[in-house]
Amino acid sequence: MSDNRLQFDGARVLADLNALRGIGAYKTGVHKPTFSEPHMRSLQWLAQRLAEAGLAVTIDGIGNVLSTSTKSGPKLLAGSHLESQNYAGWLDGPLGVVYALEAARVINPNPTVNGAVEVAAWCDEEGHFGHFLGSRSYVGGVTEADIDAARDRNSGRTMREALRDVGLAGRARARCERGRHIGYIEAHIEQGRTLESGDLRIGVVTSIIGIWQYRIRFSGEQNHAGTTRMDVRRDAGLALTRFCVDIDDRFPKACGPRTVWTTGRITLDPGAPSIIPGVAEMLFQMRDDDPGVIDRLEDLLRSMAADVTAQGRCSVAVERLRTGSPAMMDATFQHTIEAASAAFAGGRSVRMPSGAGHDAQVLATIMPAGMMFVPSIGGISHHWSENTDDADIITGAQVFVEACRRLLAA
Amino acid sequence: MSDNRLQFDGARVLADLNALRGIGAYKTGVHKPTFSEPHMRSLQWLAQRLAEAGLAVTIDGIGNVLSTSTKSGPKLLAGSHLESQNYAGWLDGPLGVVYALEAARVINPNPTVNGAVEVAAWCDEEGHFGHFLGSRSYVGGVTEADIDAARDRNSGRTMREALRDVGLAGRARARCERGRHIGYIEAHIEQGRTLESGDLRIGVVTSIIGIWQYRIRFSGEQNHAGTTRMDVRRDAGLALTRFCVDIDDRFPKACGPRTVWTTGRITLDPGAPSIIPGVAEMLFQMRDDDPGVIDRLEDLLRSMAADVTAQGRCSVAVERLRTGSPAMMDATFQHTIEAASAAFAGGRSVRMPSGAGHDAQVLATIMPAGMMFVPSIGGISHHWSENTDDADIITGAQVFVEACRRLLAA
Repeated sequence: MSDNRLQFDGARVLADLNALRGIGAYKTGVHKPTFSEPHMRSLQWLAQRLAEAGLAVTIDGIGNVLSTSTKSGPKLLAGSHLESQNYAGWLDGPLGVVYALEAARVINPNPTVNGAVEVAAWCDEEGHFGHFLGSRSYVGGVTEADIDAARDRNSGRTMREALRDVGLAGRARARCERGRHIGYIEAHIEQGRTLESGDLRIGVVTSIIGIWQYRIRFSGEQNHAGTTRMDVRRDAGLALTRFCVDIDDRFPKACGPRTVWTTGRITLDPGAPSIIPGVAEMLFQMRDDDPGVIDRLEDLLRSMAADVTAQGRCSVAVERLRTGSPAMMDATFQHTIEAASAAFAGGRSVRMPSGAGHDAQVLATIMPAGMMFVPSIGGISHHWSENTDDADIITGAQVFVEACRRLLAA
Repeated sequence: MSDNRLQFDGARVLADLNALRGIGAYKTGVHKPTFSEPHMRSLQWLAQRLAEAGLAVTIDGIGNVLSTSTKSGPKLLAGSHLESQNYAGWLDGPLGVVYALEAARVINPNPTVNGAVEVAAWCDEEGHFGHFLGSRSYVGGVTEADIDAARDRNSGRTMREALRDVGLAGRARARCERGRHIGYIEAHIEQGRTLESGDLRIGVVTSIIGIWQYRIRFSGEQNHAGTTRMDVRRDAGLALTRFCVDIDDRFPKACGPRTVWTTGRITLDPGAPSIIPGVAEMLFQMRDDDPGVIDRLEDLLRSMAADVTAQGRCSVAVERLRTGSPAMMDATFQHTIEAASAAFAGGRSVRMPSGAGHDAQVLATIMPAGMMFVPSIGGISHHWSENTDDADIITGAQVFVEACRRLLAA
């Protein structure tokens, strides 16, 4: 090994990612909801690899995989997550975990590097049971009551039941040891088209946007779809669709330059073809890195809801389920990732905000944090066809390992 | 017993209806999906009562309860259904069955009436597995392949599995004996406000509207709700909501005086808060007694879908799932129900079309058929709070029994 070039192995990185893709495979992606059998098998797989790399590993009482090194010197925390959205992509999460694993393998045994990389896989970043429950537990932001209340958004199964089913009930949840780490670094696929369209290799994340989430519920009158004349109907589903269209018409005039909003789920109750829906519900989300913009949009949303209620056919209730916490990435981390890109990606990097939420925004509340992106083909993510060129995956891994080395050496 | 007044017992009618309400009770209504345990128990309850009334009873291979009388003279077929919509009302179906049961009890033992009432309860009028599968089977309109293909619209369980689970697999499906019956008569709650608002007791049904049903599917591009800019999105859910609003804006200018249309179910795929829906689907229904009106509206629907597809963001596919078959009620039956109303409801009746579908429209394809309505409080139906005043229930029963007597005597 030369003194300034670490024993990095790109083929090993690809092999590891493909091994994880083989657990819970769905088409070319994976289906690994939190606490599913393939998710748990992925955690075991990682624990095994980390032990082989000489780290002490635990899977804690919320399903976080955490590892520690006995090597002297500074410690850098690195990781991402292993569960997936339903029927989604193979890299969203595992990429950052395998990069961190590779960094630990390369750096920790190297006597010329002072310090070590400690790897984490945070549980439920994808939010099957809540939002960032794993990393928030690690930073001390999750109470036992929060866990009591958490439920799988699809099956309705409680988190307590899920933890019992996978054998984690009663296990302690690990808390961060303040001052142990110089910071946290995470790699991820971009999940957008910025890098691809600019022929770039690395995104240096400047900030992570916050996510605000709402349940908007329309109450009308359930009735027979054949005998109830159009003019006397109080159709909650129709009111909901009008509301969605109004949002789409009015938000562009009130939003910020990078605000995005999405209606991800609509439920009509009772949902039968011959019944006028008496209740309709939508899950609505807004994202921005400026809470002031969201304040303005939430005011608009609530005034639109009040207008519908005032018209008298249906009443509308807006309930905020989640309040965003945008986070700034550490300046030194940004600079270091950029320098590593100059060394290993021909400088083809760009500074950019993250439109997606990541565990790094949670870790950023207690330590310096940084993130880097690799390109997503076609910008596609949260879908099984999500992908990144093998060459970009390897370049990204190399930049990541180098950034870790430089951060520890700083 | 006097020669022109039959031994009618209104208290017995109410007791029977309440006995059926007690099977599968939900709040003040019932939850008896087709082939559920309470549905099957209701069929057994009816079979027992019919046997007690001297009829020979069978439950056939599709769950129809059918009964025959050995009395000489003309036979009148009368009935309705016993399963319910999910968490729905206690009278929708049972009212007509219990009226028919009461007519058989009163008329069949009476030697002064030539002929008998034969009672039927048609399976799955509420369409958990299809549309009018029970009565359509009886008239010869259901093949074995249709049964192979039928599935519970909520659970996805096949009809074959359901029939096996309730012990009906392998049993023959009964077919009507052509020429046996002088016709079919059915009573039902109105499920609208016409009778109530006119302070009327009986609706004499002139025609039953047809139901046309469609699956409208929007295909866009599934993507990440944080990283995908608003201007590049192909949000299938948003396209669907715009389409619903367009229908609501454009249909009133093209519809007939009594056309109704309903979007009863919306599904966004994958239905997660952080994912832009790539596919969205709606179940859409139109009802009219004039197929010409529906032809015009379906043309409009398809041209609207083509316009959306042409705009290029999302493509729309319109699939007709069900084609309506409106039916005219027999003139003699209408006249007879009206005359019975004059005798027992003070003439407070009105001729009206039925906005709801009923098994009578299926029976009308092979024999003369008639229907009568009793008032629905507040017009509410397909909801557990559905109800009718006891006095109106009894008046209706009396009119029904009298109409049966007159039809047999004619």
